[in-house]
Amino acid sequence: MNKIYVVGIGPGAYDQMTGRAIRALNDSDVIIGYTVYVDLVKDYFSGKEFMTTPMKKEVDRCVLAFEEAEKGRTVSMICSGDAGVYGMAGLMYEVGKDYPDTELEIIPGVTAATGGAAVLGAPLIHDFCLISLSDLLTPWEKIEKRLLCAAEADFVICLYNPSSKKRHDYLQKACDLLMKYRMPETVCGIVSHIAREGECAKVLTLGELRDTNVDMFTTVFIGNSQTKELNGKMVTPRGYRGV
Amino acid sequence: MNKIYVVGIGPGAYDQMTGRAIRALNDSDVIIGYTVYVDLVKDYFSGKEFMTTPMKKEVDRCVLAFEEAEKGRTVSMICSGDAGVYGMAGLMYEVGKDYPDTELEIIPGVTAATGGAAVLGAPLIHDFCLISLSDLLTPWEKIEKRLLCAAEADFVICLYNPSSKKRHDYLQKACDLLMKYRMPETVCGIVSHIAREGECAKVLTLGELRDTNVDMFTTVFIGNSQTKELNGKMVTPRGYRGV
Repeated sequence: MNKIYVVGIGPGAYDQMTGRAIRALNDSDVIIGYTVYVDLVKDYFSGKEFMTTPMKKEVDRCVLAFEEAEKGRTVSMICSGDAGVYGMAGLMYEVGKDYPDTELEIIPGVTAATGGAAVLGAPLIHDFCLISLSDLLTPWEKIEKRLLCAAEADFVICLYNPSSKKRHDYLQKACDLLMKYRMPETVCGIVSHIAREGECAKVLTLGELRDTNVDMFTTVFIGNSQTKELNGKMVTPRGYRGV
Repeated sequence: MNKIYVVGIGPGAYDQMTGRAIRALNDSDVIIGYTVYVDLVKDYFSGKEFMTTPMKKEVDRCVLAFEEAEKGRTVSMICSGDAGVYGMAGLMYEVGKDYPDTELEIIPGVTAATGGAAVLGAPLIHDFCLISLSDLLTPWEKIEKRLLCAAEADFVICLYNPSSKKRHDYLQKACDLLMKYRMPETVCGIVSHIAREGECAKVLTLGELRDTNVDMFTTVFIGNSQTKELNGKMVTPRGYRGV
C-alpha cells in the first residue's frame, strides 16, 4: 500500500506544527503544496524533494501526489492550518478514487479559527460556525442563507476568505446581513497574518467592521450576544447563566 | 508582569501538541489542569509541579493559577483540545479581571472537531458549526434553536458533549430536530477517544445515528447535503459546482 500524509501545518511556521506533523514530513521523500506553504517549512526539512503547484491548480496538485506515491515514494501533501478545514483532505479523497492502492492519513493542525482566536483572546468559547465568503465554488445565495441562519441562532461566527480583489465589498455585504439579527455594538475581531511576521489583531464593533477593509490574509470573528471586550481582548462566556 | 500560558494540548497525548505548546510547558514552573489532562502529559514534563482540580471546579482552578502566578512562578493552565473551544481561556480572562498584574498567553491546539474529522476522513471541508449539547450552562431552547438553524442552513454540524448520564437521550432529540431539514440518509460519523488508546470511528446515516448510544468521549459529525461516504470515509466536497 502506498502512503500519502495530508498534513495541516498550522497557521504559522515550524513551532505551530504538531509533533505528529513534523514526524510525517521527516518520514516523507517528497513534500507537495501550494508555493507559499512550501516556503514556510522548506528550511526545516532539508534533503526532501519539494514540489509546488500554483493556486487554482488543486486537482493537479492531488494527481501529482498520487503519481509520486505510485512510484513507491512516501508523500506529504501540506496545507496551511488544518488540511480538513477548507483544505486539501476532501479533494484528495475524491481524486483518490482512481488510486485504490494508495492510502491517505490525515494529520490535523491548528486552523485559522482557533489560531486567530488565541490572538484575540477567547472568542470561540461557545458554539460557533465557520463560513467562507468565497463564492468561487459556492453560490452567494447559499452563503447569504448561512450568514442569516448563523446570526439568528446567535452563533459566534468566524469568516474565512473575507475579501479578495474581485470581492472587495463582500465583508460589508455580510455585515449588513448579520445586522438584521445582531446589534451594531456586537463585539468583533480581526486578525491577519496569524502567527507569522506582521501578525496584527484588532477588536472592534460590528458597525465598525462593516466599514473596515480587510485583505485575504485576514480572519474575521463576530461575537455572539454575550461576547464582550475585556481589557482589549475579545471574550465569549461559557454559557448564559453567569460564570 | 506575571505570566500564565493557557495551553491546548490537542486531542491525545504528546505528539499531538504543537512545538509552541511543548515550549510553554517546558518553560513553566507549575502545570495546572483537570486531573485527566494532567495525567496525559505528566510523564513528558518531569521536574514540574503539577496541580489538579476536579471537574466542575473550573473557577477554583483559574484562581489557583493566578495565585501561583502572583508568587512569581510561571504557570501553564492546560486543556484538552484547544483552550479556546469550550475551554478555559474565556474563564481565565473573566477571573483575570481581579489579577491585573498577570498576563495571559493563549496557545492554540488541535480541537476535537478537526482531530476527529481527520480520523473520519474529511467531513469539515466546507462551512460547519460546533454545537455543545450540554445544557449545564446553556438553556436547552437555545441549543434547539441552534440545531434547527444549522440544519436549515445546511452546515456540516459537529456536536460536542453529545451525551452524559443525565442526558442520555439528548443526541436522539438532536437528531429528531435535525431531520426536520435533513434526510435520514444524511452521512454522519462518530469518533471516540480521538488519538488516544481505544480510538474508534464509524460512518453511519443520520437515521442510524438517532438510535446509536454514544458516551461523553464521543464527537459526532452530521454531514451537509453534499457529504458522501467514499470507501468508508466521510467526505464533504469543497463546493456545490463539482470538484
